[in-house]
Amino acid sequence: MLDNSDLNAMQENFPFWEDLNKEEKSTILEGTIRFTHKKGAIVHEDRNKCTGLLMVKTGQLRIYIISDTGKEITLYRLFERDVCVLSASCLIRNITFDVHIVAEKETTMLRVATDVFKTVGSVNPKVLDFTNELVSSRFSDVMWVVEQVVFMSFDKRLAMQLLELSAIEQSDTLSVTHEALARDLGTAREVVTRMLKRFQDDGIVALSRGGITITDHDALYQLT
Amino acid sequence: MLDNSDLNAMQENFPFWEDLNKEEKSTILEGTIRFTHKKGAIVHEDRNKCTGLLMVKTGQLRIYIISDTGKEITLYRLFERDVCVLSASCLIRNITFDVHIVAEKETTMLRVATDVFKTVGSVNPKVLDFTNELVSSRFSDVMWVVEQVVFMSFDKRLAMQLLELSAIEQSDTLSVTHEALARDLGTAREVVTRMLKRFQDDGIVALSRGGITITDHDALYQLT
Repeated sequence: MLDNSDLNAMQENFPFWEDLNKEEKSTILEGTIRFTHKKGAIVHEDRNKCTGLLMVKTGQLRIYIISDTGKEITLYRLFERDVCVLSASCLIRNITFDVHIVAEKETTMLRVATDVFKTVGSVNPKVLDFTNELVSSRFSDVMWVVEQVVFMSFDKRLAMQLLELSAIEQSDTLSVTHEALARDLGTAREVVTRMLKRFQDDGIVALSRGGITITDHDALYQLT
Repeated sequence: MLDNSDLNAMQENFPFWEDLNKEEKSTILEGTIRFTHKKGAIVHEDRNKCTGLLMVKTGQLRIYIISDTGKEITLYRLFERDVCVLSASCLIRNITFDVHIVAEKETTMLRVATDVFKTVGSVNPKVLDFTNELVSSRFSDVMWVVEQVVFMSFDKRLAMQLLELSAIEQSDTLSVTHEALARDLGTAREVVTRMLKRFQDDGIVALSRGGITITDHDALYQLT
């Protein structure tokens, strides 16, 4: 059952909500459930299994692609109030790729079933406008990934990633593995380890068993 | 002035054409011009300068991004009957990146002015459906580029590119420079030259001043 806070979240984060009539609202509410995934749980992994539109209430999702050999690259992350459209890519014609979604923290989300969204979208163009704008946003996110991968040197990309994770965690101490950084950046763990050691030699980070501490924020920022 | 063949092209390649009323059709026709760019001409380069929706009548366009330092990577190519939506990205909310477009052959295209498309799109949802589906298609194209860049080895990418250019030109003799291949693949010319020399040593291609000849199609295909 949805509670008042779920209803508020939908009101606040679905810009089309006020344009729905009473019937459309109740169709969507009936097709929506709230659920929680533990840290590390796979939320979505197959295009053919259309998970539905996901709204993050609390927690954090990582959206990534994965190769046949298990190599990964992170496309973007979603946080509180963000809505994931690619988990409902079956809604969208011409999306031919598949993304995977993992909960990076314990994450509570609302899921609007795909067919409900389709039904309301077919009569209310504001609903379609919303999904189309989301698609364009994610397209822009992915273009940013292309620019980073193709145009930027790896030291710069790693520095940017450490600063981003530090901003997300609001801490200079990151409990992130070299493996996880490699998955974010689409490279091999050894490449991350080598560059982190260089950063450590330069006095920018301190490496420990538990993770990475940024010891010179300014120097790291200079690299970006 | 538009001629009958232009009108046919619009009828055939705009799937919304039959859903337009007479007035909407004439609004679009009045906002459409035909023009031709010579091989090598820049067709579009600045997001703020919204070129409009482009439909290729004859010829070939290359859509790419470029870094501050002039490095490029090709996102996709458009051929006869294809429609370019990113040249009208000002139409689309949340597209925050910029693409460049060059005519790779002498190219004749129709351009529908952005404001005309906006006007008709605001009253006819089929027009918006069309642009949204185009955005999703190009998003899928770009995801394919990400997969290639991040997941595939360079020999494989170069082999795929040579086979693709050979299919486009319907010839095993390609008048393409190492520089142009580097721009397609988002790498440095030296990297292309080194790999082509390896291909030549392996008897797969023959390099000459004028270009590249694929001498062993099967072996090239085996690499992909």
